[in-house]
Amino acid sequence: MTTAADLYASHRELLERAITAAAARDYWSAFPESPSKSVYGEDAAPAGERAFAALLGKPFPVDVPGAAGTVSTERSPYGIELGVSYPKADPLALVAAARAAIPSWRAVGPEGRAGIATEILRRINARIFEMAHAVQHTSGQAFVMAFQAGGAHAQDRALEAIAYALAATTRMPARSAWSKPQRGGDPLSMVKTGTVVGRGVALVIGCTTFPTWNSYPGLFASLVTGNPVIVKPHPGAVLPLAITVQICREVLTEAGLNPDVVTLAAEEPGDGIAATLATHPDVRIVDFTGSSEFGDWLEANARQAVVYTEKAGLNTVVLDSTGDYRGLLRNLAFSLSLYSGQMCTTPQNILIPRAGIETDDGHRTPEQFGADLATALDKLLGDPKRAAGTLGAIVNDAVLARLTEAAGSPGVVHPSAEVTDDQFPGATIRTPVLLRLDAADEKTYTREWFGPVSFLITTDSTEHSLRVFTETVRAHGALTALVHSTSPEVLAAAREAALDAGVHLSENLTGGVFVNQTAAFSDLHGTGANPAATASLTDDYFVSGRFFTLQSRHHV
Amino acid sequence: MTTAADLYASHRELLERAITAAAARDYWSAFPESPSKSVYGEDAAPAGERAFAALLGKPFPVDVPGAAGTVSTERSPYGIELGVSYPKADPLALVAAARAAIPSWRAVGPEGRAGIATEILRRINARIFEMAHAVQHTSGQAFVMAFQAGGAHAQDRALEAIAYALAATTRMPARSAWSKPQRGGDPLSMVKTGTVVGRGVALVIGCTTFPTWNSYPGLFASLVTGNPVIVKPHPGAVLPLAITVQICREVLTEAGLNPDVVTLAAEEPGDGIAATLATHPDVRIVDFTGSSEFGDWLEANARQAVVYTEKAGLNTVVLDSTGDYRGLLRNLAFSLSLYSGQMCTTPQNILIPRAGIETDDGHRTPEQFGADLATALDKLLGDPKRAAGTLGAIVNDAVLARLTEAAGSPGVVHPSAEVTDDQFPGATIRTPVLLRLDAADEKTYTREWFGPVSFLITTDSTEHSLRVFTETVRAHGALTALVHSTSPEVLAAAREAALDAGVHLSENLTGGVFVNQTAAFSDLHGTGANPAATASLTDDYFVSGRFFTLQSRHHV
Repeated sequence: MTTAADLYASHRELLERAITAAAARDYWSAFPESPSKSVYGEDAAPAGERAFAALLGKPFPVDVPGAAGTVSTERSPYGIELGVSYPKADPLALVAAARAAIPSWRAVGPEGRAGIATEILRRINARIFEMAHAVQHTSGQAFVMAFQAGGAHAQDRALEAIAYALAATTRMPARSAWSKPQRGGDPLSMVKTGTVVGRGVALVIGCTTFPTWNSYPGLFASLVTGNPVIVKPHPGAVLPLAITVQICREVLTEAGLNPDVVTLAAEEPGDGIAATLATHPDVRIVDFTGSSEFGDWLEANARQAVVYTEKAGLNTVVLDSTGDYRGLLRNLAFSLSLYSGQMCTTPQNILIPRAGIETDDGHRTPEQFGADLATALDKLLGDPKRAAGTLGAIVNDAVLARLTEAAGSPGVVHPSAEVTDDQFPGATIRTPVLLRLDAADEKTYTREWFGPVSFLITTDSTEHSLRVFTETVRAHGALTALVHSTSPEVLAAAREAALDAGVHLSENLTGGVFVNQTAAFSDLHGTGANPAATASLTDDYFVSGRFFTLQSRHHV
Repeated sequence: MTTAADLYASHRELLERAITAAAARDYWSAFPESPSKSVYGEDAAPAGERAFAALLGKPFPVDVPGAAGTVSTERSPYGIELGVSYPKADPLALVAAARAAIPSWRAVGPEGRAGIATEILRRINARIFEMAHAVQHTSGQAFVMAFQAGGAHAQDRALEAIAYALAATTRMPARSAWSKPQRGGDPLSMVKTGTVVGRGVALVIGCTTFPTWNSYPGLFASLVTGNPVIVKPHPGAVLPLAITVQICREVLTEAGLNPDVVTLAAEEPGDGIAATLATHPDVRIVDFTGSSEFGDWLEANARQAVVYTEKAGLNTVVLDSTGDYRGLLRNLAFSLSLYSGQMCTTPQNILIPRAGIETDDGHRTPEQFGADLATALDKLLGDPKRAAGTLGAIVNDAVLARLTEAAGSPGVVHPSAEVTDDQFPGATIRTPVLLRLDAADEKTYTREWFGPVSFLITTDSTEHSLRVFTETVRAHGALTALVHSTSPEVLAAAREAALDAGVHLSENLTGGVFVNQTAAFSDLHGTGANPAATASLTDDYFVSGRFFTLQSRHHV
């Protein structure tokens, strides 16, 4: 049997490298993002596709303690029939099974748990092509994006969380010696132990757009800090997390541990199992990604737990001036188009002074800028095949309904169009809509329009833009912000504004880095400092609330 | 002018030593606990006494923004007239002043803030004798204890919090370089900054028994992580925190900073200013020490803030067997007597098997043990002068009322007696009461009897004792636990029980270490894992929720 300690020994070097990278926050990646044969081997792509196809139309093979009956709730945004069914969870049985797994999981210790977690990741990576298809056909991400964001990048974020959790749980020594000098006598001497104890049962509530990327940090952070985890996928995106849970249980079982350390909670839409679980007295950690409405509800009601949420926000772009106008347009058009704006990081509010902006292509009024950005969008999305690869598919009817509402509003600068995908004729693919608004139209732009809807908003000046930026983000949250300016003073003011707003800032992106993308081990995702999220992925705060260190002491 | 950066430079070595000690958790102390002339100098004691005397009967010299009128609310448990008055706080004015101080305090940066905080501590230490009198005459601690717990140990805990806060806020680099290789092209290169931003206005709510020791960790952790702090003392123990705030403002002013980074919120009893401040939307951090009732209220109602509470609990002793019976009795008698059991760490519930315990002095039944412990108490407290030095004075009428209630209950094994202090004839001094109960009397012993009241509780067996221990502590909390056993199996079971209960454990204390004392830089105080406290003093979790790290990034 390969024990947890063996797995730690075999992954130790990788874990130490990951801890170093997470601390330095320079460039590092453990899992290659390229789906090329030279990286993953000749057979990896077809084998992954076969593995995915073999799952369709069948009950998914995963044990769920106390499950009764099955549910089948997914529908591919690409129009293919999925028909995968999952055991229907009984929330009380899941909590009981998780509780029963606590003592033995605690006894494994931080290093052993990190060993198990890293082995799980290694096996997830070995099934990356299968996972990419699963992510594509639940989230609607195009295949390459699903491979990257749902595969390699999610795995990197998971490893980052493991690294933070291992570092945090081993920073306090497991054993220390204490010797206090006494006047005219022998010193008082004691030995002290420090034992990491998880907070309790953890719950991870997944979302439909990034089922793995957004769930992995909480899942792996909770595991390594000593907590059993119940994984509750969104009914629209079960498969990627079912595969994940299957692998978790396989690794746990092979290491001689209780597989109920990780369980799957699949439900019918509307069963409300997330609320039931999140408010159960034994559930002490909740990780959630999704709507502000349910996130706020969890924060208010899951009082017995620490709650980590990532919700919606008003991602903002402040346009002041640029030395690379074409680069700005290309970069921004791609940011608006990638995965049809269905990223929690896609810019929604683009602020531009009424008097226009200075660029290396001359002065541009708001009207001209809107036309130029529309042209850039058309250029990027002109070829249907390439467009489909960038846009992916619309994940559900709610996004489509918002798009329709926006498309029918006045001030459309770039209309949304349908795109046909040769490979998947049933796919729902749309280009983004861009509307012009005035700073006074705050009723419209302070609402989050999740999906391919953005606003070009006219303000009185860059100073006014920064004020609107700070005020709206403080009040409604944001995960990303971008400023374009050639003026050091404006950039300095934008940085102060971002500190006041509590949001990370990107400056003058005109090349191959996009405001909606963050790199594991370097960029933090979310801050905790504005309403869009309660914590960053991934830092010490994200892991330190998941465990306690309990001491014992006795004389030598 | 001595800037924050200068202060960091001059205290850097001490700070680095403190960070090393906090990480190693071996023995270290920065502030000498002995009030001897050889340590603090010939004149320190009389000068401190004169300084204290000079404060009495006068308005205390501290500026409070927006204050109107004065309050004078303290009464010495030693019976002397204090008559110090303080500016009466206007909570809204305090929050406004604190908010206004945020941007400049943020700009000082972690190292500069740690420099300021350490300079504050150095000056508090220079006034340690004056502070000891202030603590004695508000809390009722005997002078030497006030000097140690209220002086040197509080200062060590403060430095520990500064060390954790500085380490946590500098772990993420302030600047990092990121360079991602690109196939067939130049790498994508960026520079990224990380800026520490405090969560917002912090509130520290002090208690009457340990006005400095329990307030300093939150105060200094919030300061170093970038937050202005409003210090709200208990109306019965204002002076120690007023001196502290005075020194904070003096150091801030001398460094050219806004003194409103630290303000004093004095009130009339019943003004309810703590509740007003704790629920103000701009107050984002609350540190509280005191009753479970108000602590629970804060956790439920101060929803806009992170809330760190230390409340009441059922500190428990499990007696199984001992190889040093006399040491056990001496040690336990002292733990029950020190500061008349008015420590949040004093044992309340002493569990003993009905069949008795084995000792090196032979078998002892519960009845015999009760008599032996009573004898040990009488021996320790037989000499009134020495007794007064151990017991200190009763802090207030509520403690006295509980003592009277217990003393009138059946099963008294050791009655409480009055003790007269020659130096302070008006002092209220009492020896502890010990009562015998059965495990079935849980209505009595699952209530916290803060003060000199303890119960010797008969159980069916040591196994039963451990079960009672785990169940009562899980439900009602505890800050300390102690087991006496010569059996490795019982000690191992006790450690597991303590992990399940979520409490730190001391084993076989028979010498000069007492269960109610914790050493800064080595012992954690509180765990967060049971209802008595939400966090430990001091670990990463205690500091990591007080700040965010915000990034900016741009291409090189």
